[in-house]
Amino acid sequence: MELDFEKSGGLVPAIIQDERTGDVLMLGFMNPAALSETQRTGEVVFFSRSRNKLWKKGESSGHVLKVREVRVDCDADALLVRVEAVGPGVCHEGYRSCFFRSFDAGGNTSVIAERTFDPEKIYGAEKTR
Amino acid sequence: MELDFEKSGGLVPAIIQDERTGDVLMLGFMNPAALSETQRTGEVVFFSRSRNKLWKKGESSGHVLKVREVRVDCDADALLVRVEAVGPGVCHEGYRSCFFRSFDAGGNTSVIAERTFDPEKIYGAEKTR
Repeated sequence: MELDFEKSGGLVPAIIQDERTGDVLMLGFMNPAALSETQRTGEVVFFSRSRNKLWKKGESSGHVLKVREVRVDCDADALLVRVEAVGPGVCHEGYRSCFFRSFDAGGNTSVIAERTFDPEKIYGAEKTR
Repeated sequence: MELDFEKSGGLVPAIIQDERTGDVLMLGFMNPAALSETQRTGEVVFFSRSRNKLWKKGESSGHVLKVREVRVDCDADALLVRVEAVGPGVCHEGYRSCFFRSFDAGGNTSVIAERTFDPEKIYGAEKTR
């Protein structure tokens, strides 16, 4: 099967799900090179839209995402990557999941998770993730 | 909080997760109007990129997605919508989840779920979803 990279401008969205807990940890994008690197290494590599280059998740923090299974959707334009998440969390703000806030109809947010690590200690001033 | 619709060309990806089972059911996109309709009605409305208009999930099948909680990610450019999925499945191919195939490094797929309904009976020739 050929993935459809065209609908999102050369990328496919990749949902990252913790295989053990079922929690959705984050969403990233992959171009063909990122997907290829992900499959070759067994650890998730995204394409960073802001930096316009491949971005290995955990390259500075060590919080890599070990691929357990990749699933594809019916239209072949989105991936679900089931992973073992190494370390206390994937979010650069110090949470297990990037989806740590609820969002109501008025646009108000509330934090619904506990911090699992201190991002300053892990990322310092660098802020690469 | 303002969502960042610009990174995906006026849209945000919205991951749909079954609140009860934790299964990821599908991924769609929302523009501000789709998000507003989702929040107003309590049922998921996407923006269809192929039809270039709002698309209420389940409008023909009756398989609507009742919103239980919306979460937003750290960068405010992706949503996680936790739902109660009405009916036997969300996928127009007859599965509970659109992610019913695994995808290996060679691009080969294998079906990893059972069909839960006959799509011909639900969608007929119409193929709107």
